[in-house]
Amino acid sequence: MSSTTAKSPDVSRRSERSRKAILRASMELVGEVGYPKLTIEAIAARAGVGKQTIYRWWPSKAAVLLDAFTEVVHDEDYSSGLPDTGDIEADLKYVLRATADEFSDASFEAPYRALAVAAAADPELADQFVSRLREPGVRVYVERLRAGQEAGQIDPDLDLDLAVELLLGPFQQRWLNRTGPLTHEFTDGLVELAMRALAPRATPR
Amino acid sequence: MSSTTAKSPDVSRRSERSRKAILRASMELVGEVGYPKLTIEAIAARAGVGKQTIYRWWPSKAAVLLDAFTEVVHDEDYSSGLPDTGDIEADLKYVLRATADEFSDASFEAPYRALAVAAAADPELADQFVSRLREPGVRVYVERLRAGQEAGQIDPDLDLDLAVELLLGPFQQRWLNRTGPLTHEFTDGLVELAMRALAPRATPR
Repeated sequence: MSSTTAKSPDVSRRSERSRKAILRASMELVGEVGYPKLTIEAIAARAGVGKQTIYRWWPSKAAVLLDAFTEVVHDEDYSSGLPDTGDIEADLKYVLRATADEFSDASFEAPYRALAVAAAADPELADQFVSRLREPGVRVYVERLRAGQEAGQIDPDLDLDLAVELLLGPFQQRWLNRTGPLTHEFTDGLVELAMRALAPRATPR
Repeated sequence: MSSTTAKSPDVSRRSERSRKAILRASMELVGEVGYPKLTIEAIAARAGVGKQTIYRWWPSKAAVLLDAFTEVVHDEDYSSGLPDTGDIEADLKYVLRATADEFSDASFEAPYRALAVAAAADPELADQFVSRLREPGVRVYVERLRAGQEAGQIDPDLDLDLAVELLLGPFQQRWLNRTGPLTHEFTDGLVELAMRALAPRATPR
């Protein structure tokens, strides 16, 4: 009995180590070889596990990658909510600057681009990408804008989903289509311009 | 002498027919097989020309495709300027509705997506894509907004390049990332929201 209870945490620790190694390997590899050439075999080899270990936990390479990104995003991207200092323009500037910095980090950017490119080419993967990664990201922006409405800094009649598209679409286009650099000057200017659309109207009509 | 002058127009007509067949074939094929699998051989076969004919005029498949899209865009996409009825909001709604309709046409959408996906994965192709196709498109929007400034409908202090990103980024993101449908309701709402940012400020500050 005591040997069993002593063993369980070890097994669980080993599993958790394997799981993290697999997720990390999947992100590294997709950034190196792209999504089409990514294989479960290569992920297993890089993570130092048997490929059956991966198949026991995930049905496909897409599922592994979506878990990997979900974990990164949950760790780093304010999944518990955007900052709320009471100044929505300052908070949005802070978050978009941090996001621009994250996209300047190749260890994040390369795998994320590989997944975004694959999703743009593959409607089924796009569905999963949108529901697993994009929608939760949009939610935290919508919630921050809703708090801004309550604070009188955001127009109470606004379609908040469209407002988030107005804020994030230009960033996303610059990044994915490489139409310009993701500088803080750009993100600050984008927030300032978008806030003109999102703020309560100056004159009633 | 008379046989030479009689022949030249024929040669020129045949060349023009071949050129158009090649451009059309390149767009059809890239939509069918994607950019990575597109070959000059397959374009030549579909167009009914020898592959040397293609290599005489273009250095690469990217060059063929960029010419093909440039021609389509020049024919259909207001390269001579956006409509100017004097009402900028109405004109932008009209143009974005028409663009949404164009992106709902698979014969345009499939090849354009294939090229955009390839450009997202390939910085060199992205450079050409941006300078050959995107920049001229942005120019006509900037010019229409500048006319709007002169007409007092657009803020005279605005960064017009950023303004175009605010207007087109959300459209582009919905399309390429498949985050929502490109309906007229969406494009109208986007123009209305963006115009709140672009219009002259209601109160001086």
